[in-house]
Amino acid sequence: MSREIYLEGTPLHEALTKWLSRFDSEESGRPLPGEIIHVKDSLGRITAEAIIAKISSPFYHSSAMDGYAVRFVDTFGASETSPKRLRTEEQAVYVDTGDPMPDGFNAVIMIEDVNIVRAKSKEQSAKSEKDESGYIEIISPATPWQNVRVIGEDIVATELILPENHRIRPVDTGAMLAAGYTEVAVRRKPKVVIIPTGTEIVEPGTELKKGDIIEFNSRILGGLVSEWGGNAVRFRIVPDRFDEIKKAILDALGMGDMVVVNAGASAGSEDFTARAVRELGDVLLHGVNIKPGKPVILGWVRGKPVLGIPGYPVSAFITFHLFAKPLIYKWQGLEVEKQEMIRAKISRQVASALGQEEFLRVKIGKVGNNLIATPISRGAGVLMSLVRADGFVRIPAMSEGIGSGTEVDVELIRSRSDIENTVVCIGSHDNALDLLANILKKKYPSLSLSSAHVGSMGGLMALKRGEAHFAGTHLLSEETGEYNVPFIKRLLSDKKIVLINLVYREQGLLVLKGNPKNIKGFKDLTRDDVIFVNRQAGAGTRLLTDKCLKELSINPKDVKGYEREEYTHMGVASAVITGIADTGLAILASAKALGLDFIPVAKERYDLAIPSEFLETERLQNLLKIIREDAEFRETVEELGGYDVSDMGKVMYERD
Amino acid sequence: MSREIYLEGTPLHEALTKWLSRFDSEESGRPLPGEIIHVKDSLGRITAEAIIAKISSPFYHSSAMDGYAVRFVDTFGASETSPKRLRTEEQAVYVDTGDPMPDGFNAVIMIEDVNIVRAKSKEQSAKSEKDESGYIEIISPATPWQNVRVIGEDIVATELILPENHRIRPVDTGAMLAAGYTEVAVRRKPKVVIIPTGTEIVEPGTELKKGDIIEFNSRILGGLVSEWGGNAVRFRIVPDRFDEIKKAILDALGMGDMVVVNAGASAGSEDFTARAVRELGDVLLHGVNIKPGKPVILGWVRGKPVLGIPGYPVSAFITFHLFAKPLIYKWQGLEVEKQEMIRAKISRQVASALGQEEFLRVKIGKVGNNLIATPISRGAGVLMSLVRADGFVRIPAMSEGIGSGTEVDVELIRSRSDIENTVVCIGSHDNALDLLANILKKKYPSLSLSSAHVGSMGGLMALKRGEAHFAGTHLLSEETGEYNVPFIKRLLSDKKIVLINLVYREQGLLVLKGNPKNIKGFKDLTRDDVIFVNRQAGAGTRLLTDKCLKELSINPKDVKGYEREEYTHMGVASAVITGIADTGLAILASAKALGLDFIPVAKERYDLAIPSEFLETERLQNLLKIIREDAEFRETVEELGGYDVSDMGKVMYERD
Repeated sequence: MSREIYLEGTPLHEALTKWLSRFDSEESGRPLPGEIIHVKDSLGRITAEAIIAKISSPFYHSSAMDGYAVRFVDTFGASETSPKRLRTEEQAVYVDTGDPMPDGFNAVIMIEDVNIVRAKSKEQSAKSEKDESGYIEIISPATPWQNVRVIGEDIVATELILPENHRIRPVDTGAMLAAGYTEVAVRRKPKVVIIPTGTEIVEPGTELKKGDIIEFNSRILGGLVSEWGGNAVRFRIVPDRFDEIKKAILDALGMGDMVVVNAGASAGSEDFTARAVRELGDVLLHGVNIKPGKPVILGWVRGKPVLGIPGYPVSAFITFHLFAKPLIYKWQGLEVEKQEMIRAKISRQVASALGQEEFLRVKIGKVGNNLIATPISRGAGVLMSLVRADGFVRIPAMSEGIGSGTEVDVELIRSRSDIENTVVCIGSHDNALDLLANILKKKYPSLSLSSAHVGSMGGLMALKRGEAHFAGTHLLSEETGEYNVPFIKRLLSDKKIVLINLVYREQGLLVLKGNPKNIKGFKDLTRDDVIFVNRQAGAGTRLLTDKCLKELSINPKDVKGYEREEYTHMGVASAVITGIADTGLAILASAKALGLDFIPVAKERYDLAIPSEFLETERLQNLLKIIREDAEFRETVEELGGYDVSDMGKVMYERD
Repeated sequence: MSREIYLEGTPLHEALTKWLSRFDSEESGRPLPGEIIHVKDSLGRITAEAIIAKISSPFYHSSAMDGYAVRFVDTFGASETSPKRLRTEEQAVYVDTGDPMPDGFNAVIMIEDVNIVRAKSKEQSAKSEKDESGYIEIISPATPWQNVRVIGEDIVATELILPENHRIRPVDTGAMLAAGYTEVAVRRKPKVVIIPTGTEIVEPGTELKKGDIIEFNSRILGGLVSEWGGNAVRFRIVPDRFDEIKKAILDALGMGDMVVVNAGASAGSEDFTARAVRELGDVLLHGVNIKPGKPVILGWVRGKPVLGIPGYPVSAFITFHLFAKPLIYKWQGLEVEKQEMIRAKISRQVASALGQEEFLRVKIGKVGNNLIATPISRGAGVLMSLVRADGFVRIPAMSEGIGSGTEVDVELIRSRSDIENTVVCIGSHDNALDLLANILKKKYPSLSLSSAHVGSMGGLMALKRGEAHFAGTHLLSEETGEYNVPFIKRLLSDKKIVLINLVYREQGLLVLKGNPKNIKGFKDLTRDDVIFVNRQAGAGTRLLTDKCLKELSINPKDVKGYEREEYTHMGVASAVITGIADTGLAILASAKALGLDFIPVAKERYDLAIPSEFLETERLQNLLKIIREDAEFRETVEELGGYDVSDMGKVMYERD
């Protein structure tokens, strides 16, 4: 094993300074030259020159109204008691809005204020052409230049229309055309060549076999390049071989302004990249003290930046923002705009390693007047944590973490209004919530449903802390056999809560298709050859598990795998289908989703607990409307299997 | 004159209700059907289906580290004092990050925590292959599934990746590819056909003659369609003839989802549009009580919306936002996001007509902690008012206006951070300020300079009210002959002000090339054949004018045109070149810009008055750096002509 251990310990700000000062010192680090394009194609591009009006607009005096152009001196003395007549064509000329003013005329009288006097008779009008054209009568004098758009009213030739380094908006294209431009010099788009590497990497759509990794990072990075104003070129997939990576970098350098090597997840390809860059040019830095994203490589080859980006998607996303975005902006003559920030209260404690700056993904919920940031998966390989994230919290290198309830600064990656339009559900997981999220977005496109799965008990505690709009709960009281109500009375004694039924659903033991281990029920969990997968403490399903074990007088210690906890039904199903466990308790829908067999154990009630204070908000009312009235929602829930929707939307309990 | 007088009096909200409820009731008013495209091309498109994961990611257990895959049971009992040996290939298999776990293995030990024991000698290793592969030694037991990315760690098959009606971001393309999608159903882009009409309308780039109007509205509207997610198709320019407009609407209806007829400025074409729509289908409404934008036509022909948009660019922009944007959004399954709003104090009184809802364009300045909204040109034909605007203030139909200092809600059309990065200059106009604005943007792309031209006195008053960061001023004291200082002492006695020189500049009388009226100086202004154009009261140039007249004992009443006031030097130059006046006092740069002759009158000092409280801000420091050090700025100012830059940047006065 020959392994290159990379440099550690470079703090982010130091790495950025090194990278950007190298960029600024290089010939290639200047704003890109302009290219001439048609103004009509210039939307979103950046001006590479100041746009100075070539002509005025209007470039002639024109009428601002439909009416008669006059010389204002001819109108002196007109009044209601003594109207004044002006001979048409000579003293008054009809003009439509926009018509040029006849030479020497300097005011317009609106058509509505004019009395048109025609020749008295056909005979008379036949006598001369002049008589036929008639007169107009006016009852008030005109002021100079009234109802006239004078030259330059909008644009005066030589005035600055747009400065250099300005992003062209729709109105700007209009102003440039009006100012006499048909072409404009805009910055050439920075071209970023992205090389996906890795022997295990395959193109999307390939028939997959174990060990294959679908290549999608280059599409994420390419999309970001587009959003930042550049052009991304994707290089073919390069296998983890030193010569091939080195050759690919050289080829790519000839194609663009910057080369990005996206290492496969394996350490090998990363080492090859660093070596190749070192042989071809300079490695400024290998390894930055951030998490995720540590194994980044900052290189410079033949006058151009070469960026080695880690393979895990979250690491790739974060390091690309940090190290590629500023370059793409600078090439366009722009500065990276500051990320929008909000202050929010972190909903639970987060421990963080000293010495590494961590980029924590959070979901933000606005519940009442509280902005709550809930940390989500911290794995560098969990792309869905980015899909679901509303923002990032940076935990400084010198911090060991954040205490629950602390106010933190969040860099937003969704808009503030998106966040304000999000309904926050924390509690037990049910597949029907996914369907609800989808139908809510479909019916009310500005609304979103965000669900965090922390179990029924965790959901009620979140309501207590004011962190959720509602909680999904299916807590069975061992004493009374009643669902949810006793727990609400006990845990939320100070809150008005309405309990609304979502579904009744079947819980059962999941086993592989054909039930190879012949599991019939909970009594089989004590068998030596049976490994169980459990749900976390506080989950309704965990309570049900414990109740079933107790009824059979089984000691949890005798259940192998009892200590392995999953947080969702799908997590349990996944553990079973992949052989991590032989069985686990979950709902029928999760068995059907993954093609597992299902041994029914109980039918249980799954309710939504909603604090009264949120019930009357428009968001919640829209949500309830779907639950109560939407046929599509009802049908798709039933299609999941194992659901009884007969009480869907019914109030089960209400406390005033 | 056959003129159709259009319907008046429909309030905006009523018009919108009529329009949107017609849309919602029509077959064509539903979200557009999906079209299947490659995921890699889907950035920015809107999902037309829920994206449900087809496969899990990872879809096999894989190593999260470089190291050895083991069965955790084999590792029990390992410790520093009694390391445990595992036979490679049998009990421990080397894996790179991302490699699939060998069957039956369920934990990975990091390479750093492993001691590799190789065969002792060549002889020994030759004995059997097994011996050759050696052992590894470990000093702590593995926990189940440590350092393993289990199936579905990122994505579990059947989970909701994206809901319907979701705008696809870069990370979403990655998640779809990871979830087994290579194609995705997205909403077809709404197609909007824009017909420019008007006999006077010409294509940009045409050799212009009096009466021509450059067609640019279709490019503004088309750009907005693109920004809102649609496709714009521009129809050829159609002359103001009823049959041609009618035929164009019919042809266009076959090409897109919506037809937009953009009337020429003349009333004729608007009437033709209304008649054509009425003959082909329904006119829901003609005329809405908004300003600008009143003459809008809402029509419905053969199941599709036909929108008649007024010809003036500001009217077109506003009505298109009001009536086209919601349709384009609804077709994509989206709702129009709420405009970002801020509260700001209006800097001067605005009178508004009762009965019309006015859309007032404003510039926003953040000066100290005050957000100040300054109304800009209200003309429907002034496109530059949109280019320069930061937002709109809506003045309700039932209001007669807004008093100075009132807090108003502003709908932002620039970002909040753009506004916070704007340096606000209010005061006298000088062409060098345009150059300064351009170079500021070029050197510091995130900064902008916004100038309002209200004259020197107006600028000092704006400083007094805390509405500007600095003011350009060239006020000459008649008594002392001193520039600016006496005025600052008198008007801003309560403020610490630093006075920094920008330029000395020549003022003179502008006349047409060749000086056809043979004007030699101020004494000629009393001639009967000479018309003067003045500057507004409070302008430094006005003070200079009055001083010159006084010195010659000329009564202003004897100067024809003395009462016609322009607000800028270029306005004066424009009045002279267009024949509105024969002469006016302005700086040499404005004469040179429009090719006028110049009769020198005085050399004057033009300073920037900066309150000390703003002087040390980064924004102002950057600005001063340009004024003091930037060679390009100095040179381009000198190139304007008539400037002396020898004291540029020098402190002329400072009060502690």
